[in-house]
Amino acid sequence: MPSYKAPVEDVKFILQDVLGIDRFNNLAGFAEASPDVIDAILQEGAKFCEEVIAPLNLPGDQEGCTRHPDGSVTTPKGFREAYRAYAAGGWMGLAAPAEYGGQDLPHTINTVMQEFISSANLAFGMYPGLTQGAIAALLVHGSPDQKRTFLPKMVEGAWTGTMNLTEPHCGTDLGLLKTKAVPNGDGSYAITGTKIFISAGEHDLSENIVHLVLARIEGAPAGTKGISLFVVPKFLVNGDGSLGPRNGVSCGSIEHKMGIHANATCVMNYDGAKGWLVGQENRGLNAMFVMMNEARLAVGVQGLAQSEVAYQNAASYAKERLQGRALTGAAAPDKPADPIIVHPDVRRNLMLVRAFNEAARALVLWAALSSDVAHRSEDPAERQAADDRLGLLTPVVKGVLTDLGFENAVRAQQVLGGHGYIAEWGMEQFVRDARIAMIYEGANGIQAMDLVGRKLPKDGGRALMAFMGEVEAFCRENGAEDGMKPFVEPLAKGLEQLQGATMWFMQNAMAKPDNAGAGATEYMHLMGLVALGYMWGKMAKAALARKAAGDGAAARMDAKLVTGRFFMERMMPEAGALARRIRAGSDAIMALPAEMF
Amino acid sequence: MPSYKAPVEDVKFILQDVLGIDRFNNLAGFAEASPDVIDAILQEGAKFCEEVIAPLNLPGDQEGCTRHPDGSVTTPKGFREAYRAYAAGGWMGLAAPAEYGGQDLPHTINTVMQEFISSANLAFGMYPGLTQGAIAALLVHGSPDQKRTFLPKMVEGAWTGTMNLTEPHCGTDLGLLKTKAVPNGDGSYAITGTKIFISAGEHDLSENIVHLVLARIEGAPAGTKGISLFVVPKFLVNGDGSLGPRNGVSCGSIEHKMGIHANATCVMNYDGAKGWLVGQENRGLNAMFVMMNEARLAVGVQGLAQSEVAYQNAASYAKERLQGRALTGAAAPDKPADPIIVHPDVRRNLMLVRAFNEAARALVLWAALSSDVAHRSEDPAERQAADDRLGLLTPVVKGVLTDLGFENAVRAQQVLGGHGYIAEWGMEQFVRDARIAMIYEGANGIQAMDLVGRKLPKDGGRALMAFMGEVEAFCRENGAEDGMKPFVEPLAKGLEQLQGATMWFMQNAMAKPDNAGAGATEYMHLMGLVALGYMWGKMAKAALARKAAGDGAAARMDAKLVTGRFFMERMMPEAGALARRIRAGSDAIMALPAEMF
Repeated sequence: MPSYKAPVEDVKFILQDVLGIDRFNNLAGFAEASPDVIDAILQEGAKFCEEVIAPLNLPGDQEGCTRHPDGSVTTPKGFREAYRAYAAGGWMGLAAPAEYGGQDLPHTINTVMQEFISSANLAFGMYPGLTQGAIAALLVHGSPDQKRTFLPKMVEGAWTGTMNLTEPHCGTDLGLLKTKAVPNGDGSYAITGTKIFISAGEHDLSENIVHLVLARIEGAPAGTKGISLFVVPKFLVNGDGSLGPRNGVSCGSIEHKMGIHANATCVMNYDGAKGWLVGQENRGLNAMFVMMNEARLAVGVQGLAQSEVAYQNAASYAKERLQGRALTGAAAPDKPADPIIVHPDVRRNLMLVRAFNEAARALVLWAALSSDVAHRSEDPAERQAADDRLGLLTPVVKGVLTDLGFENAVRAQQVLGGHGYIAEWGMEQFVRDARIAMIYEGANGIQAMDLVGRKLPKDGGRALMAFMGEVEAFCRENGAEDGMKPFVEPLAKGLEQLQGATMWFMQNAMAKPDNAGAGATEYMHLMGLVALGYMWGKMAKAALARKAAGDGAAARMDAKLVTGRFFMERMMPEAGALARRIRAGSDAIMALPAEMF
Repeated sequence: MPSYKAPVEDVKFILQDVLGIDRFNNLAGFAEASPDVIDAILQEGAKFCEEVIAPLNLPGDQEGCTRHPDGSVTTPKGFREAYRAYAAGGWMGLAAPAEYGGQDLPHTINTVMQEFISSANLAFGMYPGLTQGAIAALLVHGSPDQKRTFLPKMVEGAWTGTMNLTEPHCGTDLGLLKTKAVPNGDGSYAITGTKIFISAGEHDLSENIVHLVLARIEGAPAGTKGISLFVVPKFLVNGDGSLGPRNGVSCGSIEHKMGIHANATCVMNYDGAKGWLVGQENRGLNAMFVMMNEARLAVGVQGLAQSEVAYQNAASYAKERLQGRALTGAAAPDKPADPIIVHPDVRRNLMLVRAFNEAARALVLWAALSSDVAHRSEDPAERQAADDRLGLLTPVVKGVLTDLGFENAVRAQQVLGGHGYIAEWGMEQFVRDARIAMIYEGANGIQAMDLVGRKLPKDGGRALMAFMGEVEAFCRENGAEDGMKPFVEPLAKGLEQLQGATMWFMQNAMAKPDNAGAGATEYMHLMGLVALGYMWGKMAKAALARKAAGDGAAARMDAKLVTGRFFMERMMPEAGALARRIRAGSDAIMALPAEMF
């Protein structure tokens, strides 16, 4: 049975030493989040994840969800109680406005909690995760009446949320969607159509389920310009807030899938269900994007989270399993064999995962902090810069952290040899669960196109220029310091590759857009590498400062520095290969006639 | 439901145009394998795989194997009939000696069949696969009596085989094994102990199961020097060849695992079971290695096989699924959207898989041909050279083809988006099934150590020098030809990286063996890249020749050339990053104290 320990100390190092969260005390909610408060919340959250939901992960996978003939769905044993404890703990509304019952704390703190939950039990975490996304969309685009009706119950955790986009014939290309909305004449609409792949579409955790549904109002323009967003509750809500009759929406079936078995992936049938327009007519994609952007960051966090829990279990195994002898002579001569952590190739695997996890955590929290600043700062320039950064980092966090998070789950599984393949050890579940994060909320190829086709050119490349400028300034300011050289030099080289690749796109993709499409994934990974490398630069700097201050964390800070050096020596070199692939362009990719595939 | 079409034409191109199998007509069995005979066998084998076993793959995964309270195990519905058809078709003994009922055909042809079977139904293919390995071990090390008793029945397919190495506390480190063998005084031994992870250890496909079991004879030296190999049949065999009473071996349980559900992975309990020594006392590892080397190549083939079938299904989906428009304008303006194969990133994924598959197939067949030459040539120098090559390529084929085969199954799954995650589409099964190949028959880290620690230094590096010399000569001989330049130049650069990395090991790993351990996996992949690149060089040359001959295969040959160019532009650049990682050495990997992991 796998175990999980939330990396509380590492989070505090990142928030306080690396990102200097104290600097943001002027932002709403941040002053309340003093180090002591943060510490208390993280300890409490860690305990909940470690003791309540992590033990449900393996049995939840094995039992899965069950759909009954009446269309109801039950979650695995223990999920209802755990969800009640989650709601009672006030976790759903951690970052929600006090006005609706939330605690108004920084989104950054909620992001930490998302990581812990997604490590402990990804399938469980998706229920509140989708609800938080729906809350975000209603906060921005809901009418005052909708907010009053739905938000307090959702923030309390009594009701959960979903997002309904995909249909059998359309996933990425939402312009093709067919679900229709017909005005009822009373301000509501009758929604009819079939949605597929709806996570948490039906379950037994909450009293009501608030579906946010994309549909086309009769007579709306074709394509994406004719899509509107609707809120469609499972149970209609009476004027006094109590639950009314069942709405015309039901779960037609649940999917048998590779992983996240404990989260019901539903086919949802809308049969004249009553829905209310959220935001403006035909501007549904716009409204849904609030939810989607939030969800994309959360999915990136899931990639990190699975990589983290897989690492922890692989490291424990490697320290205990006795097999073979160190190449340099027996390390444990009193035992029949040495623990396999003496073998360089085993360590190489563990270090690859670890070096990713620590940097990815910093990157995620930097993005989350950018989101807080973008939403809460009173300085328009600061808001703008943070929003630029958030937009730029979102596809990178989603795409790169889930690609590498999955790879790392596979890598950690490998450390266990044959046991990694056996269900009871839990490692193969991490692999199966991590796999979904590369697919949902926009498959990673779509993230790459979002980055290259939308985020790069936006505002004349302002966001990218700011990012590259910031990394360049960091290299300039720290390059002379001896202790920083092993970090700054490889980072500067990676940055050069990124600059070169950007230039290549500018020169070659305007006239021939396939050149951008052909290199988009590699570009996303190149930017991810530079962003993770920048995080290592900042972490190394913070670690050196902590060591200089001599506060007793020297062993931990030394480990940081070693891990950062490993990143620079072993992972950064990929930048050159990525850049060469980008410059190969699209010719060989596009040359084959389709029928020859 | 996924489908499969055996790549018969591609195999023939490789055998005839690339490897020039005609040149070997002087070898035993090769003269019989005329192009017509090969064609007939491949067509027949393809039909069996496509029509009989591929349709059982998805249902077999879903049903899995069942162990009954009496210890018997049943395979999924349809497996018994399919296995009977396999045996009746004479497939088991394709390359076995006529003396024991085999067809004495080249091992190379059997390897092709292994690919087809492993694409169509990996779990099914493991039953005959292990049997063929056991046949090989008995052929080399069995006594005349053992051969007479077991081989005809095994070659016929009436009895199957297994290999029993792993115990709960020892997998890689066989020196730790505890299963003991006590002489019965009649020439037989009483075998007692527990073996785990025994594929096909118990099932309902054959009348008898012939276990090859590693055990320690009472009083034998500790470690690997005291291990002997025994043959332990499930049913004892009477003097007249009929089946006698049940032996003291039984299946204690079967594992719940990530994939290959239709192959029973058994805990085997030996309780004084009667066994007979195979080969010499205390030389069991030596005898088992015959089986293991054969099995390692076959597992490499499994990596290719899963990559191939995953590719085929992803390519079909990409040509049918309509979503979005080409970046260069609508490709199918009459349809609501373009097939997703117009998108460069989708094609990039498909090309990566395809460029691997074709080169991996050539590499596998080159290794198989080397095995035939090593076993059948009458020229000692030719035998020696082929044996050297086979030894060098074995860990590369096993490690690289399974690592990349799995990656490619994941990549192909990604092409299907959400559908890739759903069981009924079959893609997620390919991923789960492909995963085991990186683990069993020596986890890939062990393959890397076998390559770097054993195969490189062997005979003063003779095998490696010959390999690098051959690639170098190819580059020299073909570099001047215009059509070959896009292949030869990148290949020569990759070779340079391999030469540089080899030199680095020579200079840095003698004094500090951890430097070899730290770079072993990267070195294995670097050699794999060069070997695959060399195959592309040879395939390009053959394709250009076919085009010049103007035999009507121009479109297929053009596709070869495009795919080869893609390999050189997109995959070969990894060589530089691998070489840089190797040269980073072991310092950052070994620096962290074990307790800090």
